[in-house]
Amino acid sequence: MQSFSDRLAENIKQRGNPVLVGLDPRFDSLPESLIAEVSPTNWSGVAKAYALFCREVIDIVAPLVPAVKPQAAFFEQIGPPGMNALADVIEYAHRKDLLVIFDGKRNDIGSTATAYAQGILGSGPAVRLDSDSTKAIKSPWGADALTVNPYLGDDSLQPFIETARERGAGVFVLVKTSNPGGGMFQDLVAEGRPLYRHAAEYVERNAAETLGQCGYGIVGAVVGATYPRQLAELREAMPHAWILVPGFGSQGGTAADAAGAFDERGLGAIVNNSRGIIFAHSSKPYRERFGAARWREAVEAATREMIEQLRANTPAGKLARK
Amino acid sequence: MQSFSDRLAENIKQRGNPVLVGLDPRFDSLPESLIAEVSPTNWSGVAKAYALFCREVIDIVAPLVPAVKPQAAFFEQIGPPGMNALADVIEYAHRKDLLVIFDGKRNDIGSTATAYAQGILGSGPAVRLDSDSTKAIKSPWGADALTVNPYLGDDSLQPFIETARERGAGVFVLVKTSNPGGGMFQDLVAEGRPLYRHAAEYVERNAAETLGQCGYGIVGAVVGATYPRQLAELREAMPHAWILVPGFGSQGGTAADAAGAFDERGLGAIVNNSRGIIFAHSSKPYRERFGAARWREAVEAATREMIEQLRANTPAGKLARK
Repeated sequence: MQSFSDRLAENIKQRGNPVLVGLDPRFDSLPESLIAEVSPTNWSGVAKAYALFCREVIDIVAPLVPAVKPQAAFFEQIGPPGMNALADVIEYAHRKDLLVIFDGKRNDIGSTATAYAQGILGSGPAVRLDSDSTKAIKSPWGADALTVNPYLGDDSLQPFIETARERGAGVFVLVKTSNPGGGMFQDLVAEGRPLYRHAAEYVERNAAETLGQCGYGIVGAVVGATYPRQLAELREAMPHAWILVPGFGSQGGTAADAAGAFDERGLGAIVNNSRGIIFAHSSKPYRERFGAARWREAVEAATREMIEQLRANTPAGKLARK
Repeated sequence: MQSFSDRLAENIKQRGNPVLVGLDPRFDSLPESLIAEVSPTNWSGVAKAYALFCREVIDIVAPLVPAVKPQAAFFEQIGPPGMNALADVIEYAHRKDLLVIFDGKRNDIGSTATAYAQGILGSGPAVRLDSDSTKAIKSPWGADALTVNPYLGDDSLQPFIETARERGAGVFVLVKTSNPGGGMFQDLVAEGRPLYRHAAEYVERNAAETLGQCGYGIVGAVVGATYPRQLAELREAMPHAWILVPGFGSQGGTAADAAGAFDERGLGAIVNNSRGIIFAHSSKPYRERFGAARWREAVEAATREMIEQLRANTPAGKLARK
């Protein structure tokens, strides 16, 4: 079975960029045409609009970028119908040859962590098999990777890593998050270094033990573009870990801020943008250029612009297709 | 609107004990009669069995205990049908006058945390209103409280607390978890005290700002019975915070271990037991006494025994109904 890290590297090289499109459907931000006849408390109706919207976004970005990251919270917000929509969106993204990172920040202990991992990780048929590997497992949610929270320690993280190993999937551990208040606990200094460095050591150790041919392991880290100094520091501290970089765009991070996350080949990082791409129609300069009716063109233009920004300002420029 | 903390205190006093029954359906542990004709990969079939099983458990424990705690992971493990079952179970528990703590250990930043909070917190009609309060909000999941993870800091926790405040709901923050490896990060010493004490300070501050008439706030803490010394230490450090105590029973915690979580009135703590109650039919001494066919009697006997153990060995004895 090809490892998640190699599948990610391959998709990045094939598309020629490391852009991760965040699928964060929010009722109030959807293009008017999709919600004109839907009441915000009609959860089934909202769920249908979310699925339709995400499918259309996927149609636009699938030829351009390597992966998408549905944010579980926005689907969970509208109850069980939202969870149906989430499963539908994941399946649709796979059909379009996108990798799917389930952003759930899940965490629990022992066999409960295993339950999350078994439910979420494993995309089955999308996993390409070697001749001597076992059968690919498609889990109910069918994601290629999952974000997880480290607060509960090693025996809460191993079940995720073990399941990911068995199923050709990946795990991204929160290390240094993009929010302004993230430092409250993550920056506390223990044994001479901040908590996030302790988490990073754990990630690096487990990444180094699960290396693919691309030089990275199946255990990665989440580090915000809003902390560029720490991002460069953590790239160095975790030479074998993919870094998922949130905080680009709406949260203030720029391409230059994300530059430190990459290795010299232009690999090692995927940079997420959610609102800045999927709701581009309502922000400058796309609002004037396209407006709500031409929201699909705004999504494409914003995706292409982010790709160009990363190519111009980070080592990811070396990935550009000739 | 009556606050979550007062509703919890009231239910505890009315039932005369602080037992929290964890609803952790696991396919392999369900009574044979419920899964005899269900394939483990038929997720809709499994979900129906989970809902039926949890409803039957609720029927048995509702007259005896104040609250239940469905573990989201086991429902999420079987995909969207499991999430339907989870919503069904929460609604059924409310009909039986049980408080429901959604054990999701959710966490994210800013408006994403708000999405989780708005989706999960708020039980609507079950919230009793004062004359001058606003209308109760029933969220899609309809839970009375939620467990959350603190790693992302203050601005990731406030959205949960604010939503809980508005909706008469509660939040339990992971402080010192019950698993053997929980100390990996939680016990790291920063600024002279372990990380879990930093989390506890945050909980206490927010609990003190949201006090109900019972003397406790709507922000509580999760502290494992497997760490009795820290449990007593944290009771003292968080005089205004409810403590949700996992780790009783299967994980090794005893009633005596949980004693330190209570105040002198016998309030301040709820003690969870999942497998030890719901799957009592497969463990000693109930396996011999009842066997799988009489699993319902095993659930009742195990619940009554846990109530007696807490009454005999903790200040909760003062709650006993005359």
